[in-house]
Amino acid sequence: MGNLTQHLFAVVMAGGRGERFWPAGRADRPKQLLPLFGEKTMIEETVQRLFPLFAPERVLVIGNLAYVDTLRKLLPLPVENVIGEPEGRDTAPCAALATALIRRRDPEATMVMLPSDHVVRPAKLFQDTILAAAEEAQKGVLVTLGVTPTEAATGYGYLQLGKAAAPGFRKALAFKEKPDRETARKFFQDGNYRWNSGIFIWRCDAVGRAFARYAPELGRRLEAWSTGADYTRDFAECPRISIDYAIMEKADNVEVGDVNFYWNDIGSWNALHSVLTLDAAGNAVRGKALALDARNNVIWNDSDRLIGVVGLNDIAVVNSGNGVLICALSAEQRVKELVRQLRESHPEHL
Amino acid sequence: MGNLTQHLFAVVMAGGRGERFWPAGRADRPKQLLPLFGEKTMIEETVQRLFPLFAPERVLVIGNLAYVDTLRKLLPLPVENVIGEPEGRDTAPCAALATALIRRRDPEATMVMLPSDHVVRPAKLFQDTILAAAEEAQKGVLVTLGVTPTEAATGYGYLQLGKAAAPGFRKALAFKEKPDRETARKFFQDGNYRWNSGIFIWRCDAVGRAFARYAPELGRRLEAWSTGADYTRDFAECPRISIDYAIMEKADNVEVGDVNFYWNDIGSWNALHSVLTLDAAGNAVRGKALALDARNNVIWNDSDRLIGVVGLNDIAVVNSGNGVLICALSAEQRVKELVRQLRESHPEHL
Repeated sequence: MGNLTQHLFAVVMAGGRGERFWPAGRADRPKQLLPLFGEKTMIEETVQRLFPLFAPERVLVIGNLAYVDTLRKLLPLPVENVIGEPEGRDTAPCAALATALIRRRDPEATMVMLPSDHVVRPAKLFQDTILAAAEEAQKGVLVTLGVTPTEAATGYGYLQLGKAAAPGFRKALAFKEKPDRETARKFFQDGNYRWNSGIFIWRCDAVGRAFARYAPELGRRLEAWSTGADYTRDFAECPRISIDYAIMEKADNVEVGDVNFYWNDIGSWNALHSVLTLDAAGNAVRGKALALDARNNVIWNDSDRLIGVVGLNDIAVVNSGNGVLICALSAEQRVKELVRQLRESHPEHL
Repeated sequence: MGNLTQHLFAVVMAGGRGERFWPAGRADRPKQLLPLFGEKTMIEETVQRLFPLFAPERVLVIGNLAYVDTLRKLLPLPVENVIGEPEGRDTAPCAALATALIRRRDPEATMVMLPSDHVVRPAKLFQDTILAAAEEAQKGVLVTLGVTPTEAATGYGYLQLGKAAAPGFRKALAFKEKPDRETARKFFQDGNYRWNSGIFIWRCDAVGRAFARYAPELGRRLEAWSTGADYTRDFAECPRISIDYAIMEKADNVEVGDVNFYWNDIGSWNALHSVLTLDAAGNAVRGKALALDARNNVIWNDSDRLIGVVGLNDIAVVNSGNGVLICALSAEQRVKELVRQLRESHPEHL
């Protein structure tokens, strides 16, 4: 056990973009660089949550080259541990690269791969879960963490559970795409489905074998990078594919670990209702604001201006950078369309 | 007639406040100093509209002492024609003071008193109406202009019309306070009621006699000021009373002149729907904005930030100074309450 943690590496994936969070999220400030609730950015919270289970020298961050310098200044990690992807290619190439870089340092490594922009509380339960999964991973299985659904959500991928593998772990039967409403209801009522948290735990040798078998092109690059080949020369040639598609759905040695910490991927402004302290009228407020006859709104303001909301319910008001968004919470999926229009008509406001 | 215009003076009343227009309207920027639609402030438009019927030296502006300097810089008038009220005392003391100051210059004067923050279009029709009223005023009557109602509005005072006095002029039977909805409907259907525009035309000697008879305290001060007494010493002691209450409701020589120009007092953000060019979805927009699935909104933005509105109808969004207002148009009357709360909790944002 003491021995295991010496070989435990974390890889924080910081490749996401911030379109859904315009105007707070912008080209140069993706969601993980936003202090969505509280003082610290999402990625600072994510990295801090790994300590002390992971020593800083065993925490890697892989993100867009464009903001590697920002991440290096922000995070209490060795600068060489913050790695810029030459080009965003989805999670499978990212996982292959991370596996290779860790194997260069420690052929015995067990690695945890996790998103940089989710809310996870409390850190202690999270670390206990990760450690248990790392121990389970010593069997050579690929572990993913599954969140027990609290509603028939259509915004998450689902994991279908099979037989028990160990206390707190069950075999994965299938990975399911984001379902339609009817399917989501079935999954929710069935009881044998979990939300796909995007948190993976495996030994580097085990995932290397899985790449070789199920995604041989990436497997070959992984082997070459592991022995010192320069990934900056060919990373951009990798197929753009997710780790779920490339490996997890195909492998027969996948297990799902129980999540008993609070988890929220904060997919939209509405989710702040779940993680910010609400006022008496159910408003989630960050920054200077005054609400009058106004209920269940999300008000997010990092400017010095005061936001006054009068006689409106269920809206998001976001004042940040050089934009102000006022959006019905029920229409949040249209923000991407707004951003697309802005790209054409007002690119200086993205 | 040529002789009349040589004796024609205008008094622009600029004493209003801007609470209903927070955050664009503020303590140091009342409504008349706002460029509500277009590039110029309301008061600049008002003064410009008087030329060339009135020579600049015969246009007086009476406003709050606090922004007399601002007005003097803004307006193409002799600086001595911009007069600071030692204290706001409503329209009757303002009218008495204006009458006195004009009589000092010209005992034969005819004067037009008008608000500084209304929309009036086009200037030519306005000037024609004013000139006709000035001619009618040579009979010694007190003329007020009445706007033909286009709906059963509850936000205006009404003038009840009596017999015809001259083409375009009828005797005033009564002044009516802002009515309730039922009464407003009656006034509207009756056909013999006009909205009180707040525009008055009279000979200075005639209104002086009316003050003496119906508001003798103000009448005495008017006489003293006319002969050189220092109004700054006793103006603040005047009763706080409107010209309607003090004189117009009591006098038996009041006539109402027809208004055939477009008139709008812009009592709230919603009124901008009537004076701004609307986009295809009925949004009244001034400044940088993009609306998506959003109808019949008012968006007023004097900042460099872009306002994005998604999936919301019938709201006002105002970004100005150090505040942002998001308000249901149906709840506009609550903005005053918001301002009251701000005065207590965030006075720096007023």
